[in-house]
Amino acid sequence: MGKISWRPGTMVYPVPAAIVTVGADPSEWNMLTIAWTGTICSDPAMLYISIRPSRYSYPLLMKRGEFTLNLTTVEMAHATDWVGVRSGAEYDKWKKTGLTPLPGEKVSSPTIAQSPLSIECRVREVVPLGTHDMFIADVLNVRADERWIDPATGAFSLKDAGLLVFSHGAYYSLGDLIGRFGFSVKKEKKK
Amino acid sequence: MGKISWRPGTMVYPVPAAIVTVGADPSEWNMLTIAWTGTICSDPAMLYISIRPSRYSYPLLMKRGEFTLNLTTVEMAHATDWVGVRSGAEYDKWKKTGLTPLPGEKVSSPTIAQSPLSIECRVREVVPLGTHDMFIADVLNVRADERWIDPATGAFSLKDAGLLVFSHGAYYSLGDLIGRFGFSVKKEKKK
Repeated sequence: MGKISWRPGTMVYPVPAAIVTVGADPSEWNMLTIAWTGTICSDPAMLYISIRPSRYSYPLLMKRGEFTLNLTTVEMAHATDWVGVRSGAEYDKWKKTGLTPLPGEKVSSPTIAQSPLSIECRVREVVPLGTHDMFIADVLNVRADERWIDPATGAFSLKDAGLLVFSHGAYYSLGDLIGRFGFSVKKEKKK
Repeated sequence: MGKISWRPGTMVYPVPAAIVTVGADPSEWNMLTIAWTGTICSDPAMLYISIRPSRYSYPLLMKRGEFTLNLTTVEMAHATDWVGVRSGAEYDKWKKTGLTPLPGEKVSSPTIAQSPLSIECRVREVVPLGTHDMFIADVLNVRADERWIDPATGAFSLKDAGLLVFSHGAYYSLGDLIGRFGFSVKKEKKK
């Protein structure tokens, strides 16, 4: 068995299926689902989102320069997919999905109540690359849902929340725990 | 139950636990594990990797301007973690892990034989952000392992390969299929 070469493509997986919320007040609050996102720097905490300029929320994002990245769960999978396929130009996505906006804390864009973790961001730079513009952003705040915080230990669990995974055109649940970061070295030390 | 605000942090999950390979010839081939990676543009196909300048492979990456991003599997989890914790300054990572380098096709950096999918990249720009430098890169080639291609349909399955997922300090397998992209609209059409 060997390796087959394909043409260049977008094959970095697994990734989040995250819902980006935008808008300065309830009348303009909207949302879109994206998968092209990731951490780009640990300190200062920074992330990117890449978005097609043709998307309905794009001008609003450019105008406001703020957004919230909401992680999603298996329970939210249907809504997450729908928000990614449909346009805010045609639908009131909040009404259609039942997702609930909460006012932002450090930004004007809303936090989705059902999301286990929401990251409030301010855009630092927009980099046009081709089909997508990359928004380079500073993380201003992270909001976690208390439901997934163990009151005894204070530990927050995205696993318990049922984090949704996107990989190569499909949504998955998070599977079994294989090990914690550094487990290979801990095993070595025991020898 | 409500939302608790934390300080800014790196909470974009799930992400890959990918092994980046670098070096122009077998004598300098090395590898490091990263999680800060993602697609930044679909066409042209582009991705980023963010790396601390203190990492052993950093000068080599700067010098050669090419790398290969190798996705990993549950079977490779121990090696993946070990490669992320240990330094190439102290170990021959190939010997220690048993991972096997294959010559690159469009780049000089090697492809890991055990990886189900390897993405050959050329660096376009390096952006210093703080703890991490972001390498913005063009995808030159995608190499898939024939083992995970269904000979009947030609379909490639990262799920069958046992794709490894990294989330909030731990490695997981990919769980159950929840639905394919667009499933929420297909259900609507049936109504």
